[in-house]
Amino acid sequence: MSVAVSSLSGLSLIGEGVASPGETTFYGVNPATGKKLEPAFYSANEQQISEAVGKATAAFFPYAALTAKDRAAFLRRIAAGLAEQGAAIVERANLETGLPLPRLQGELARTTNQLTLFAEVLEEGSWVDARIDEADPERKPLPRPDVRSMSKPLGPVAVFGASNFPLAFSVAGGDTASALAAGCPVVVKAHPAHPGVSELVGRVIQKAVKESGLPGGVFSLLFDAGVAVGVSLVKHPGIKAVAFTGSQQGGKALMHLAAERSEPIPCYAEMGSTNPLFILPGAMKERREALAKGLQASFTLGSGQFCTKPGLVFGPAEEMETFASQLGEGVNSMGQQTMLTPGIAGKYGEAIGERAKEAKLIAGADTAVDKEVAAGAATLFRVTLKDFLGHSTLEEEIFGPTTLLIQYGEKDDLVAAAEGLHGHLTATIHGTDEDIAGAGELIRVLETKVGRILFNGYPTGVEVCHAMVHGGPFPATSDARTTSVGTKAIQRFVRPVCYQDFPDTSLPAELRRGNPLGIMRLVNGTLTRS
Amino acid sequence: MSVAVSSLSGLSLIGEGVASPGETTFYGVNPATGKKLEPAFYSANEQQISEAVGKATAAFFPYAALTAKDRAAFLRRIAAGLAEQGAAIVERANLETGLPLPRLQGELARTTNQLTLFAEVLEEGSWVDARIDEADPERKPLPRPDVRSMSKPLGPVAVFGASNFPLAFSVAGGDTASALAAGCPVVVKAHPAHPGVSELVGRVIQKAVKESGLPGGVFSLLFDAGVAVGVSLVKHPGIKAVAFTGSQQGGKALMHLAAERSEPIPCYAEMGSTNPLFILPGAMKERREALAKGLQASFTLGSGQFCTKPGLVFGPAEEMETFASQLGEGVNSMGQQTMLTPGIAGKYGEAIGERAKEAKLIAGADTAVDKEVAAGAATLFRVTLKDFLGHSTLEEEIFGPTTLLIQYGEKDDLVAAAEGLHGHLTATIHGTDEDIAGAGELIRVLETKVGRILFNGYPTGVEVCHAMVHGGPFPATSDARTTSVGTKAIQRFVRPVCYQDFPDTSLPAELRRGNPLGIMRLVNGTLTRS
Repeated sequence: MSVAVSSLSGLSLIGEGVASPGETTFYGVNPATGKKLEPAFYSANEQQISEAVGKATAAFFPYAALTAKDRAAFLRRIAAGLAEQGAAIVERANLETGLPLPRLQGELARTTNQLTLFAEVLEEGSWVDARIDEADPERKPLPRPDVRSMSKPLGPVAVFGASNFPLAFSVAGGDTASALAAGCPVVVKAHPAHPGVSELVGRVIQKAVKESGLPGGVFSLLFDAGVAVGVSLVKHPGIKAVAFTGSQQGGKALMHLAAERSEPIPCYAEMGSTNPLFILPGAMKERREALAKGLQASFTLGSGQFCTKPGLVFGPAEEMETFASQLGEGVNSMGQQTMLTPGIAGKYGEAIGERAKEAKLIAGADTAVDKEVAAGAATLFRVTLKDFLGHSTLEEEIFGPTTLLIQYGEKDDLVAAAEGLHGHLTATIHGTDEDIAGAGELIRVLETKVGRILFNGYPTGVEVCHAMVHGGPFPATSDARTTSVGTKAIQRFVRPVCYQDFPDTSLPAELRRGNPLGIMRLVNGTLTRS
Repeated sequence: MSVAVSSLSGLSLIGEGVASPGETTFYGVNPATGKKLEPAFYSANEQQISEAVGKATAAFFPYAALTAKDRAAFLRRIAAGLAEQGAAIVERANLETGLPLPRLQGELARTTNQLTLFAEVLEEGSWVDARIDEADPERKPLPRPDVRSMSKPLGPVAVFGASNFPLAFSVAGGDTASALAAGCPVVVKAHPAHPGVSELVGRVIQKAVKESGLPGGVFSLLFDAGVAVGVSLVKHPGIKAVAFTGSQQGGKALMHLAAERSEPIPCYAEMGSTNPLFILPGAMKERREALAKGLQASFTLGSGQFCTKPGLVFGPAEEMETFASQLGEGVNSMGQQTMLTPGIAGKYGEAIGERAKEAKLIAGADTAVDKEVAAGAATLFRVTLKDFLGHSTLEEEIFGPTTLLIQYGEKDDLVAAAEGLHGHLTATIHGTDEDIAGAGELIRVLETKVGRILFNGYPTGVEVCHAMVHGGPFPATSDARTTSVGTKAIQRFVRPVCYQDFPDTSLPAELRRGNPLGIMRLVNGTLTRS
């Protein structure tokens, strides 16, 4: 059965049902035209929030008790449903976000691949970190007990959809996929900028829940034009963890709410960053022109609305004049780009105006934006390293197609400059083999500043794989010990539980004698599948 | 060279040196006599705290750059030093804590074993969770990059010594051992109740740092009679994580300090708990007498000053009268026990007085304690399940040799009662094979409430091994995702760092092509040593 766009109800999904229409409504807006999109969406009320969390709580035990293979089948069903409804999903996402269709098709593929990858992790099974220390009744002075432990899900998780990834970081995105994979029911607060695609995706999950014979409370989707629903959700005692991708302001607010609860809970907020990129002298000499092109493509990709956008570019002073003018030409040749929302475009324009007071604007069309239509022009700024070090606001993220060139002299200490940075998601080094061989100290410093270091690449584009770390020290994220992309993200939603001297029949299958699931386990200190 | 007890200086250890004497002094006190113990100890001042953290920061890069094997050798050197100085350490610990010599000898062995176990983990090497996804230049639409990640240390860690474990949870205890194993320098705030043994152990570490050729800042030890040093330490921007074992009040204060920093940091506070123990009907019928003896030994062990002391005992009503009177006889036959400090004994006496207002005191000597000498008598209380559910304070921990019997009737819902509990470190089920086979729901609930579930045992005594979880949901700890005992504790002090398209020579050895260290790695989704 197909979910046609015309069927959008504007109603929150509460477990297996829909919420009754409330009093407050809002609309999606086409950022390319400024026109509102039908239908009206209804903000959830307190009772509906409680109902969603109550159903999630009731669903937790039966859902957590599923075998990993059954949970994997559920994730695969969601992926298949998304693929089946792909055309309608991408079409509505395009209307609501202004992101081009090919980008959205790619994002949909990424979203389904992500669900499938977590299914594979569950099917393989070793992710639970099963540990077994066998009993030794003969040990002196006391017998050694039999001790076994493994990861268990935390409970219902609140997920916040992000504005800039209507699919991969929203209703069925990485946070939802990893929480569901871990065995946690999910209550999503949809991002108000793309409610229609949120409903479409939410219905696909709701259908997969039903077809998998799971309790409806495994998944709910709440709409809200403002922040009230999110605040109530994070404060609700039934919620056991929070996952968020968005602004520093929003992320910090959630961190505080999570920490101030009578039972504090983990809060995983990915709050964006400015992603320093270091062009070392050899690379600048060798391929200045290619670097200018690569950088332009990266910082303007998706109208610069990526949390991995390279927003700080350190380059050697002697070549900077030529580099900047090459890059500036490219930037000047670009027209205005559609941004995600009129609000984001407006903030971008204001931020560019502020930045022009602290750095030299060297390229970019008029930043004045039509207030109705969400359009922004790429801009390029330039400062010396000394000026950069003197203005801490220059390290802050501007969400949109802009970057800051920072020229360093021969005597400038790039390592010391890196030491002065706060946390970011990524750092990039462009260099020759000789450059990188001499950059050991810089790498050591960057290891303490970011989640991912790239060599001769661009940080936009985050591979969904096992080794990916999309995280980093505060303020890039609230918790540098984690990643929100890649299979390690599942670890955010579990905690270890230990069983001492348990009879085999009362143990989880992962910990039973004889290893019936054949997973990798740490047995008496040795990793083994036997 | 031997460190004689007479050589105690009373001075904080700042890296390779000692702090100059400050203005505020305090003394250890023999809890058995109430007499103060020489010498005077000097509280650290702000400048000394900054110096210790500054040295730790300077030591971080060189220490983190050690090979895992060199770090293991350092841990083994500390263990050897502790064993060599064992007699002096145990003697002073006995004077300062009143804990009996055999207990302290056992605790010393546990402390050295723990260091050795972490050394083994480092030598084996797979703990770093190395993940590798190899490049695929042919992939469409975009080439797949080479992505590799592994755990890296967080930076300098502040460790707080605990009153009740002068060795295993203090200067060279589990928190220090796991942080040092992870590659983090450590600044310990000694517990003021046992400053002498803290200095002795601190000097052993200081000597091991020197003999291992490490920068002095890898380890510092700060004294303080009050809380000022701890507060400054946690607020210091150079500190990147906190580990604490102690009271809920102290733990919560540190959680808030850590969360309110301009750069919030992980805070691992183990805050004790009441450790519910469930006697199921079959077990009570089968071995009532043995249960009474076992429980008495467990809740009075170490004068009840264990965070794993069973303080809530649920038993079937029909046998409770006999069980309680058997247990009561045993309790009444015990004399007063020396507690850790006069302050702790005083608080115990007050708490017993308060409890007697809410529960029936059914055994125990006069709770009046000599204000000078730290002595407390074991006590036993009893309530019905209905009364327990009506008084939330009955779930709170009383630090000392007391426990609360809670009798449940046939119609009482033990699962619902368990659902009403907050987080604890452990839960214990005593049952026959038939009892446990029918306790599936109870186990499912307890999995969400505690870090460790025991069957037919007693929670006091925490095995140091790979599978141990000494943790649990708030308020038992600040972070249920972790353990403070066992080798998994090392994971508290690391975060993942990812390298994209790095040349082999710039990668950490753990991630290089060809796996030179032969560790287990997740390569393209498959765990392998090749």
